[in-house]
Amino acid sequence: MKKGTLALLIHGGTENWSLERWERRFHDVCGDRPLRLATEKGGDPADVRYAAVWKPVPGELASFPNLKVIFNLGAGVDALMADKTLPKVPLVRVSVGDLTGRMTEYVVLHVLMHHRQELYLRQSQREKRWAPRHQWAAGALTVGVMGLGTLGADAAEVLVRLGFQVVGWSNSPKTIKGVECFHGKTQLDAFLRRTDILVSLLPLTPDTHGILNRELFSKLNRSSPLGAPVLINAGRGGLQNEADILSCLDDGTLGAVSLDVYQVEPQPADSPFWTHPKVVLTPHNAADTDADEISKYVARQIDRFEGGQALENLVDPDRGY
Amino acid sequence: MKKGTLALLIHGGTENWSLERWERRFHDVCGDRPLRLATEKGGDPADVRYAAVWKPVPGELASFPNLKVIFNLGAGVDALMADKTLPKVPLVRVSVGDLTGRMTEYVVLHVLMHHRQELYLRQSQREKRWAPRHQWAAGALTVGVMGLGTLGADAAEVLVRLGFQVVGWSNSPKTIKGVECFHGKTQLDAFLRRTDILVSLLPLTPDTHGILNRELFSKLNRSSPLGAPVLINAGRGGLQNEADILSCLDDGTLGAVSLDVYQVEPQPADSPFWTHPKVVLTPHNAADTDADEISKYVARQIDRFEGGQALENLVDPDRGY
Repeated sequence: MKKGTLALLIHGGTENWSLERWERRFHDVCGDRPLRLATEKGGDPADVRYAAVWKPVPGELASFPNLKVIFNLGAGVDALMADKTLPKVPLVRVSVGDLTGRMTEYVVLHVLMHHRQELYLRQSQREKRWAPRHQWAAGALTVGVMGLGTLGADAAEVLVRLGFQVVGWSNSPKTIKGVECFHGKTQLDAFLRRTDILVSLLPLTPDTHGILNRELFSKLNRSSPLGAPVLINAGRGGLQNEADILSCLDDGTLGAVSLDVYQVEPQPADSPFWTHPKVVLTPHNAADTDADEISKYVARQIDRFEGGQALENLVDPDRGY
Repeated sequence: MKKGTLALLIHGGTENWSLERWERRFHDVCGDRPLRLATEKGGDPADVRYAAVWKPVPGELASFPNLKVIFNLGAGVDALMADKTLPKVPLVRVSVGDLTGRMTEYVVLHVLMHHRQELYLRQSQREKRWAPRHQWAAGALTVGVMGLGTLGADAAEVLVRLGFQVVGWSNSPKTIKGVECFHGKTQLDAFLRRTDILVSLLPLTPDTHGILNRELFSKLNRSSPLGAPVLINAGRGGLQNEADILSCLDDGTLGAVSLDVYQVEPQPADSPFWTHPKVVLTPHNAADTDADEISKYVARQIDRFEGGQALENLVDPDRGY
């Protein structure tokens, strides 16, 4: 029997993971399963059973009448969920160890950069000034992780190992060893009061849209050993109010920020984030997708599905992640 | 019975840990034990039983005829060992969890900075260029840790947790979970061939003086995913040949370096390290001593010693560390 076709609807990848590279990877792992690229014309849309997508064009998925599963090639599904024509079939959020490890690298790097005064030290180097300042040990600081899914839990575990005090906040209750976990709207303020370095790994949903704003920043630990609290956002640009971030940096409500995500990506040349001395800007590369790992994951999930097993990492359409 | 006097011979501390601050801390933890400061005149040198020292003046310790133990308030004892008049009494190298944790913070931060292309990303930010490059996962790189004492073993453990391949080299054989350990001169080349990021935490001894030189750098992994291998020296300035580091950076034998220690400290204004684009310079602040932790440690060791228990972390005069 001919296997169901897998459509690759991949748009806006990085230059390193072009559509052609993805196609080659999927060819390697899919054996005799037919593949169809978003750019191809012709062929019967009714053959397509599966779609592996990255930033698909709204309406694109609705053209396949026999679609059974959608695989999103990244952790964030907010753009997909906003497509009102999205077929009502299971949506799998790709979760590979590689992605988790990369995000933990990013979070640990940026927490340590702020903790170890890297902005100050690089400035001192540029000015040829040998001027070490008092350096707290990790245990003097509390890192607050918002979002305690696979990514947040893994990053929190390494931060605990490094000696930081770690608190966490999520929508539903969680238990993570060594981490004081808060949940829900009623416990958010208590979580924020403790936090010196706020790490955002939240999914973008109607509830979390714009949650990183002045009101929230003003509730962070006002007597932080860092002088002023720090924000690290590696979740989604839609979580943050960018005007509030800038004004809070300028009036001292925030001491510094690391941003990997923005309301507009790529950031335009006139964005004030490029030149602000308290902003560490990264070009949405915290956790690049790895085509090898992800294509293998998708192929394995399709095989499981066709063998009658349950799909993993299903998105809950009501929660939106 | 009157307790033996503890002499505090502390010179050249950072501005944050002045002699007065040290004195206050030792007063807090030593109870009724008499203290004597290096700057004080008078008093009978014969009363001094213990000395807590940081960069003592050569010959200073020889003036106490009844000295029983010397405590060095840091991990490196090379300057002390060079003093030919050093009394032949037990020398304890202070090793507190705090110091180990701080060094691990430093090593993990700088490994991640090079792994995650921070020099490139900061330059891109200055130039307002949104240009992510391919980012390897940690598992694609091998970090080689030279020196597998308390500091090296702890840093290696966290690097393993972050997903790096980790190899280690030390003078004598060691076993560390998840780390392939090499030892002795005969296994040095095999260790270097594997290494993409070299972390030096070696003690400074006649054997290790100048060991970080062109010959060694040229044996590092020549087909590193980073392009060229990276050096992080948080041990001692005397380990490194600084002319070789500069010429190896310029001819591509090394891709980048993080240096916390130098042959001359503070670095003079005309040092080329300040302005070299491939050098991350820190002002010997990788693992600041913490007067709270260290004074408690010394007081506890003296109590143990007077109670007939063995001293911990004794320096072996033959090895020199």
